[in-house]
Amino acid sequence: MINLPETNKKRVLIIGGGFAGLKLMRELEHSDFQVTLIDKNNYHQFQPLIYQVASAGLEPSAIAFSFRKLLRGKHHMLFRMAELRGIYPEQNMIQTSIGKAHYDYLVLAAGTVTNFYGNRDVEATAIPMKNVSDAMGLRNALLSNFERAMTCATAEERRELLNIVIVGGGATGVEIAGALAEMKRFILPSDYPELRCNEMQIYLIEGQDRLLGGMDKRSSAEAERSLTRMGVKVILGEQVKDYSNHAVTLADGSTIPTQSFIWVCGVKATPTNLPANLIGRGGRIQVDAFNRVQGMDNIFCIGDQCLMSADPAYPGGHPQLAQVAIQQARQLAANLKQLSQGKEQAMKPFRYSNHGVMATIGRNRAVAEVGKFKWHGWAAWVTWLTVHLMFILGVRNKMLVFFNWLWNYLTYDRSIRLILYARKATVVREREEREAKVHLPDVAQA
Amino acid sequence: MINLPETNKKRVLIIGGGFAGLKLMRELEHSDFQVTLIDKNNYHQFQPLIYQVASAGLEPSAIAFSFRKLLRGKHHMLFRMAELRGIYPEQNMIQTSIGKAHYDYLVLAAGTVTNFYGNRDVEATAIPMKNVSDAMGLRNALLSNFERAMTCATAEERRELLNIVIVGGGATGVEIAGALAEMKRFILPSDYPELRCNEMQIYLIEGQDRLLGGMDKRSSAEAERSLTRMGVKVILGEQVKDYSNHAVTLADGSTIPTQSFIWVCGVKATPTNLPANLIGRGGRIQVDAFNRVQGMDNIFCIGDQCLMSADPAYPGGHPQLAQVAIQQARQLAANLKQLSQGKEQAMKPFRYSNHGVMATIGRNRAVAEVGKFKWHGWAAWVTWLTVHLMFILGVRNKMLVFFNWLWNYLTYDRSIRLILYARKATVVREREEREAKVHLPDVAQA
Repeated sequence: MINLPETNKKRVLIIGGGFAGLKLMRELEHSDFQVTLIDKNNYHQFQPLIYQVASAGLEPSAIAFSFRKLLRGKHHMLFRMAELRGIYPEQNMIQTSIGKAHYDYLVLAAGTVTNFYGNRDVEATAIPMKNVSDAMGLRNALLSNFERAMTCATAEERRELLNIVIVGGGATGVEIAGALAEMKRFILPSDYPELRCNEMQIYLIEGQDRLLGGMDKRSSAEAERSLTRMGVKVILGEQVKDYSNHAVTLADGSTIPTQSFIWVCGVKATPTNLPANLIGRGGRIQVDAFNRVQGMDNIFCIGDQCLMSADPAYPGGHPQLAQVAIQQARQLAANLKQLSQGKEQAMKPFRYSNHGVMATIGRNRAVAEVGKFKWHGWAAWVTWLTVHLMFILGVRNKMLVFFNWLWNYLTYDRSIRLILYARKATVVREREEREAKVHLPDVAQA
Repeated sequence: MINLPETNKKRVLIIGGGFAGLKLMRELEHSDFQVTLIDKNNYHQFQPLIYQVASAGLEPSAIAFSFRKLLRGKHHMLFRMAELRGIYPEQNMIQTSIGKAHYDYLVLAAGTVTNFYGNRDVEATAIPMKNVSDAMGLRNALLSNFERAMTCATAEERRELLNIVIVGGGATGVEIAGALAEMKRFILPSDYPELRCNEMQIYLIEGQDRLLGGMDKRSSAEAERSLTRMGVKVILGEQVKDYSNHAVTLADGSTIPTQSFIWVCGVKATPTNLPANLIGRGGRIQVDAFNRVQGMDNIFCIGDQCLMSADPAYPGGHPQLAQVAIQQARQLAANLKQLSQGKEQAMKPFRYSNHGVMATIGRNRAVAEVGKFKWHGWAAWVTWLTVHLMFILGVRNKMLVFFNWLWNYLTYDRSIRLILYARKATVVREREEREAKVHLPDVAQA
């Protein structure tokens, strides 16, 4: 039972509290809706810095922000921790892991999940890096592989444990490759004096012929040059075919032994039970110029989960970036206010305005593009730091991130090298098992 | 294979990197031994602040410190992440989860584990708070219980989800009860405006007739008075009989419904395969005045895991406190240096010198005793803060803890209200399963 308080306001349900969902919440703060945010976590995560959690530079809590804290003191703004299980447009109803809820307007903003392109071996064993929980898992796995490398029986196994293979040369792949190359250079020799660090090799594999496919070719070349100089083996134009027996097999038949197999080469939209004819490229839900799901009156989709072909500048859909999500949320908030007052004609179509893209490679190294300006090196790196610090929620988190960055920069350290798992209490495990049984079929009859 | 480098130095193996093991490591730094620390975690944890991790006031990384970082640049000081499985004194050998190791001197410093006094219902469901992993699990469980309380179907279930029962009125129980009472007062009303917080009740149950049994009666009375004023229901002289169907049953037959059942009412020494005649009260290993395990030449035990009746002031053994552990480690380091030079007569028996005990209850409230001086309130609280800040390892951790304390004090906030689990990578899970199969029987034949 999702237990929303009775109200005579119109109900907006937002599924997902990423950049899109959160921005929408904030824009609807002084509106005349009852707004409920539904997310499977109780915190917003600052996606662009997840790779720094994985590489032991930041604590999860520095880039995660409690939804309840954000909603403090805001009337008619509610939060429910639950997972969406099904959408039933005829009944204006959704089913979640904790029960049903009715809506006047439903906004899907559930983002994307890692895409394994149907390869089950890879899905079962690769380490994704899509959220904070993945990132902590990756950190734990890398550190525990290093520990085992100290004591394993054969040179072959030691190579497997020390090699790191990163699949996917987008911003995430480039950033984690850079961070791990610095860890290899500055941390491993002093932490593991018994290991010969040249036994460790970091591979970055990309299917296309360049890194950072979404950026300018000069930025791609700069990223490749920097990473190579930092000791990363960049392999371009090569597909990963399989992963088995602790080895990655490439399309050309060659293999790389590794137990640290990081998969950041693609995402697909978080799946729903909406009919297949509404789904476009990358599993994304097709929306019109107002982010309205095609053929639906009161169901919208924003951010990475949607595909809009109505923006003249982006006929193939927008890139899946935080900026697009934030701008769509802002536009949708304005449109929902019009719509709820019966002024459907006053709704404005969405137009994306590109404020630029950036990726960081390492200490003093980044690439940035804003309009026709493209720069790299120290200046780009400082821009990157400043922009990210500005966009992190909350004074406490900004201070924590700044403190950690300063500390890590001055000491060349990554302080959070702890292999740490939370013990799951029986009462929580049992509840999760119960809630996992809330399946679609049970609902359709409801 | 534990893979220790060849050496002509004498080998000291230390099992456990708590206060005792870590102090011993540091004291042996400039000695003529090859010293290897073996711990199942890759970090030292600062036990006295674990309750603050559980109550969302501190991040795990603020009170955990990487062993490898501590051992940086120190020759002949090694670390292995492994669990002890068996001790074979005739062969001067131990078996661990990752293989065998030989020693010249073996020092057990593995501390204690939670004692469930044989009650399997309690063991299966109670939430312990012995280490960082437990504390994160407790934090996750509490927050997730609050989330569910928003949406559960019945008032009965809501009461179960909101009630918190803490069993054990020692320092840990008092400290967590105080921290949760403050959370109830300052955090819950604003985070969960839909809940009526008076539905939430915190119980602290103690079998003896007073809290803080190890301290002076006036301190006990002060703790009880403060907690009661803060809204905690303190129940003294009452035993918990069982926990089933989300309810605690007391010895008098009454029940308290709760899904947050925290068990901090006792510890027992970490078990080993040493013969039963060497084991005393609380599962502790009996040692002589030099911390030598009775009847053994070169096996020692220090800290909470040992029981020494040779100290004239403590014929029943020492209290299980950090101070005892640290002092024993210091004495043992000196004695080992003498012993290894054949000067067994020069070894000095251990005498515990009590520097005082403290417990914090909440904002501006603590109790402290040093010798004949006993004080409480603000002054005791400041003493507590200062002493703990001094004893935390590392400048970065001191700064982080100080920043978090200051922030929490000024804002009345507990910022880390995140329900957060690390995803366990397949490769790590498989390795753990393999290592769990390293059993004692396999070894005895070796």
